[in-house]
Amino acid sequence: LWRLRGYTSDRISAPYSIYKGKAALSLNPCLPTFTKLTSGMIVLDRRGSMMMTFMPAIGERKYDWEKRQRFALSATEVGSLISMGPKDSSEFFHDPSMLSSNAGQVRKSLSIKPHADGTGYFVSLTVVNNILRSRENFTVPVTIAEFAVMKTACSFALPHIMGWDRVTHQQYRGTVG
Amino acid sequence: LWRLRGYTSDRISAPYSIYKGKAALSLNPCLPTFTKLTSGMIVLDRRGSMMMTFMPAIGERKYDWEKRQRFALSATEVGSLISMGPKDSSEFFHDPSMLSSNAGQVRKSLSIKPHADGTGYFVSLTVVNNILRSRENFTVPVTIAEFAVMKTACSFALPHIMGWDRVTHQQYRGTVG
Amino acid sequence: LWRLRGYTSDRISAPYSIYKGKAALSLNPCLPTFTKLTSGMIVLDRRGSMMMTFMPAIGERKYDWEKRQRFALSATEVGSLISMGPKDSSEFFHDPSMLSSNAGQVRKSLSIKPHADGTGYFVSLTVVNNILRSRENFTVPVTIAEFAVMKTACSFALPHIMGWDRVTHQQYRGTVG
Amino acid sequence: LWRLRGYTSDRISAPYSIYKGKAALSLNPCLPTFTKLTSGMIVLDRRGSMMMTFMPAIGERKYDWEKRQRFALSATEVGSLISMGPKDSSEFFHDPSMLSSNAGQVRKSLSIKPHADGTGYFVSLTVVNNILRSRENFTVPVTIAEFAVMKTACSFALPHIMGWDRVTHQQYRGTVG
Repeated sequence: LWRLRGYTSDRISAPYSIYKGKAALSLNPCLPTFTKLTSGMIVLDRRGSMMMTFMPAIGERKYDWEKRQRFALSATEVGSLISMGPKDSSEFFHDPSMLSSNAGQVRKSLSIKPHADGTGYFVSLTVVNNILRSRENFTVPVTIAEFAVMKTACSFALPHIMGWDRVTHQQYRGTVG
Repeated sequence: LWRLRGYTSDRISAPYSIYKGKAALSLNPCLPTFTKLTSGMIVLDRRGSMMMTFMPAIGERKYDWEKRQRFALSATEVGSLISMGPKDSSEFFHDPSMLSSNAGQVRKSLSIKPHADGTGYFVSLTVVNNILRSRENFTVPVTIAEFAVMKTACSFALPHIMGWDRVTHQQYRGTVG
Repeated sequence: LWRLRGYTSDRISAPYSIYKGKAALSLNPCLPTFTKLTSGMIVLDRRGSMMMTFMPAIGERKYDWEKRQRFALSATEVGSLISMGPKDSSEFFHDPSMLSSNAGQVRKSLSIKPHADGTGYFVSLTVVNNILRSRENFTVPVTIAEFAVMKTACSFALPHIMGWDRVTHQQYRGTVG
Repeated sequence: LWRLRGYTSDRISAPYSIYKGKAALSLNPCLPTFTKLTSGMIVLDRRGSMMMTFMPAIGERKYDWEKRQRFALSATEVGSLISMGPKDSSEFFHDPSMLSSNAGQVRKSLSIKPHADGTGYFVSLTVVNNILRSRENFTVPVTIAEFAVMKTACSFALPHIMGWDRVTHQQYRGTVG
């Protein structure tokens, strides 16, 4: 009843979205994939992540999906986010072309900075693309309540993007001896 | 084995209820609903919420169910509640007729205020109805222990009212390749 | 596939036990039971609890199961336990014969008191039985680490003893439309 | 559909690994096993644990799996880890030959010590083997973010290694009355 093949990780979508004046931000967990070895052992194949998607505003309550940019938080980056106190800031750097011939050409940085008055955070994504000679920036102000949802939802999702929910649930699916 | 149609979100009920002298308060999670697109993609249709129901007392340990008033906390409002410290207060405003011709006629406000001595909170709902020319107020004193149950239960329920439990569990329901 | 009748809540047992010099303490979640109304609605029938069982020591690493005493923490009492800080204490009183003709004859009190040096807690149960003219006391010193397990396990179990796991999982069991 | 026999606890593997200059550390939950008594009761047979595996580095990003050493954290030791504040340290001692004729010959100690500047922890395993006259030491510096992942993942896994997930899920598997 539990099948690995044909599994499409994006069949169900329920992003947590924060719509603000200049841009929108949405969070969606991406599950890991697994591979079955010839030994029968099932091992993690591709790591899961917490996908953050930014879209620029193009009018009142309208956002341009075509111009979206994404940033996939790793388990450790999610750990950084959920351990942030009200005055902490975080910054993460990704190179989507790492290990390819285009390494260093595109640089993405995500920063989370607290408001001076402690009422929330600024979550910003900057994408510098040397090939297209472009530089894009998205900044979404996030309230304390919205950040609490992000933290609680990320804490819930973390074991899932690590694949630990599969490890802990396997006992219900044992074969007969 | 997992069917969308015919799904009734209120089949099982297990509210957490707090009965006090002048009113009672109960919490119950309301799950989101999903729709299957022609592409096969399943997307969130109606958002979930944490339903708070208030009832006035009409005698010793008797409450008037007919006179109940409800307030559906959104995911972000739940985030606000679970991030409250012992001295914090919160206030939320809802207009049940928003976007209709009756907009502004009924105003609901929910407030959570800490006791001066730190032993708990006052949770109050005020409903002002300009059409009926009525104003109702319910106030339930909540102890630290009861508020801890509310926070733990809301933290547990939050990913479910966001629909993230479906996203993280979909892997167990993949089709065969 | 999900059946109410014939359900025995104690089929699987995995208590968390703390064995100390004079007594042992074990924790075990007790699930609520549900009843199906003629309307098809399923409602909570008997509340769940966190069962604490104390046994006196009768030799080195030997405990007398026959002389055990139990104390069933309600959801709100669990909320009190999981919100305790390192210097907080709690005390709960139960009358197992409440609302019967023996009301007031047996009095159980559970107390949780912090060590003066902050290295843990004393968890004590006192049972005074006026009918048997007996008074029993069990005290188990609990370390910070053991108390952290109790808090984490109780936080995990709380939505289950409230029956909220059933509410949030019902969507996977919908009927076909 | 839920079978006890033939159940192999290590079929799915998804360790959380931290690779550093001199050694690597990985965490993997090990589930408990259960036995069915003739009474029909199912009881915990072998306790679960959080397995920590250390490997020495033998080159850049290369680690020697053959020279790995393991340390199985009990539920209470996991409780100690997840309750650690930023300035706390912990130390655990295991004797893998305890209760055998080799008792005291091999001594394992795991220590978690905070960096002086509060930016993380040193996680170290020392294995002293009097029979082989060997002494091995592994030290892995762990950042605040990595430790947050360890704490969140251990909090998630704790009820599972205690077997409480089985207790709370048994209601969905009741027999027909």
